[in-house]
Amino acid sequence: MERLQKQLEFIIEVDQLKTILRQSQITDNSRRENDAEHSWHLALMAVILGEHASDPDLDLFKVIKMLLIHDIVEIDAGDTFAYDQLGNEDKQEREEKAAQRIFRLLPEDQFSEVYNLWMEFERNETSEAKFANALDRLQPMMLNVKTEGYSWKKHGITSKQVYERNRQIQDGSTIMWDYAKQLIEEAVGKSYLIK
Amino acid sequence: MERLQKQLEFIIEVDQLKTILRQSQITDNSRRENDAEHSWHLALMAVILGEHASDPDLDLFKVIKMLLIHDIVEIDAGDTFAYDQLGNEDKQEREEKAAQRIFRLLPEDQFSEVYNLWMEFERNETSEAKFANALDRLQPMMLNVKTEGYSWKKHGITSKQVYERNRQIQDGSTIMWDYAKQLIEEAVGKSYLIK
Repeated sequence: MERLQKQLEFIIEVDQLKTILRQSQITDNSRRENDAEHSWHLALMAVILGEHASDPDLDLFKVIKMLLIHDIVEIDAGDTFAYDQLGNEDKQEREEKAAQRIFRLLPEDQFSEVYNLWMEFERNETSEAKFANALDRLQPMMLNVKTEGYSWKKHGITSKQVYERNRQIQDGSTIMWDYAKQLIEEAVGKSYLIK
Repeated sequence: MERLQKQLEFIIEVDQLKTILRQSQITDNSRRENDAEHSWHLALMAVILGEHASDPDLDLFKVIKMLLIHDIVEIDAGDTFAYDQLGNEDKQEREEKAAQRIFRLLPEDQFSEVYNLWMEFERNETSEAKFANALDRLQPMMLNVKTEGYSWKKHGITSKQVYERNRQIQDGSTIMWDYAKQLIEEAVGKSYLIK
């Protein structure tokens, strides 16, 4: 029961992920997306799109666990916009501190498991991390196109920036990157994105 | 590519789950929880609490897939409050229709997989479904206690109703039901819940 209580303290603490707002709007363009619903969307994408991963033998269960926890550090560290150079400079340090505080609420063995999953996602070296990161890149592009380029326009983002930022999708899935390139061309054609 | 496009249409369609509001408030009591972030919370609970399931051999990956899709039908059918007798009368019919429309956006093989997962959750007969349903019962109780009984007070819910509705937690996890009973007693003690 003591162990269960520790675990549930963590579960209550991470409820705050529902209050961390991202730059993307949800598809009805009514408001910004939060990290918790974003994480749900990515985990579901992994279930549906797993067959398109570059590595056919990857551990999809691990991908999904990674996606469910990958943004939890933002409860303390905040969401850093992908194209914010200054914010990205000390991102690693802020997030490491957050990981220590939040994941340490868990029993020791689970702290290790969750911390390692998060680190693996961040390092982006394994098949699982590459596919998880590819989904994390593709989803906001889809929301952006669906909301007429809302956050791209707001921040004056160019197609070159989007290409450079998202090129790594191909490491997780070739066909998803082919699709992403189509999305970028569509976005330029419709002036959602500066050429 | 055609298959990928069908899958992504589904992914965009289910974005609407972020707009379906539940009765529970999120823990900072600022607003109602939506179905997408609720689904994320439950899937993460399954990762962390899996060891407490009554059946030690259950397939946790299946539990998580079930939880990620279990509320999608509410995009069309709406969220039916647990204690709303009238709303629960035609719930099954409304949700079946929704499942047919939304899950059919997927390629045929994935329609079957997702529809069967949803049905398994609803029927609540397998170890996986019982544990998933137990989490789906426990989480709103935790949010309610954390927000001083917000939705219980709003609807004048009694401890007897909460006992009856949530007793099935014990089918998924004995220790989680022990904890849930403590929560109910705490809630009665603090007058979050009518005795």
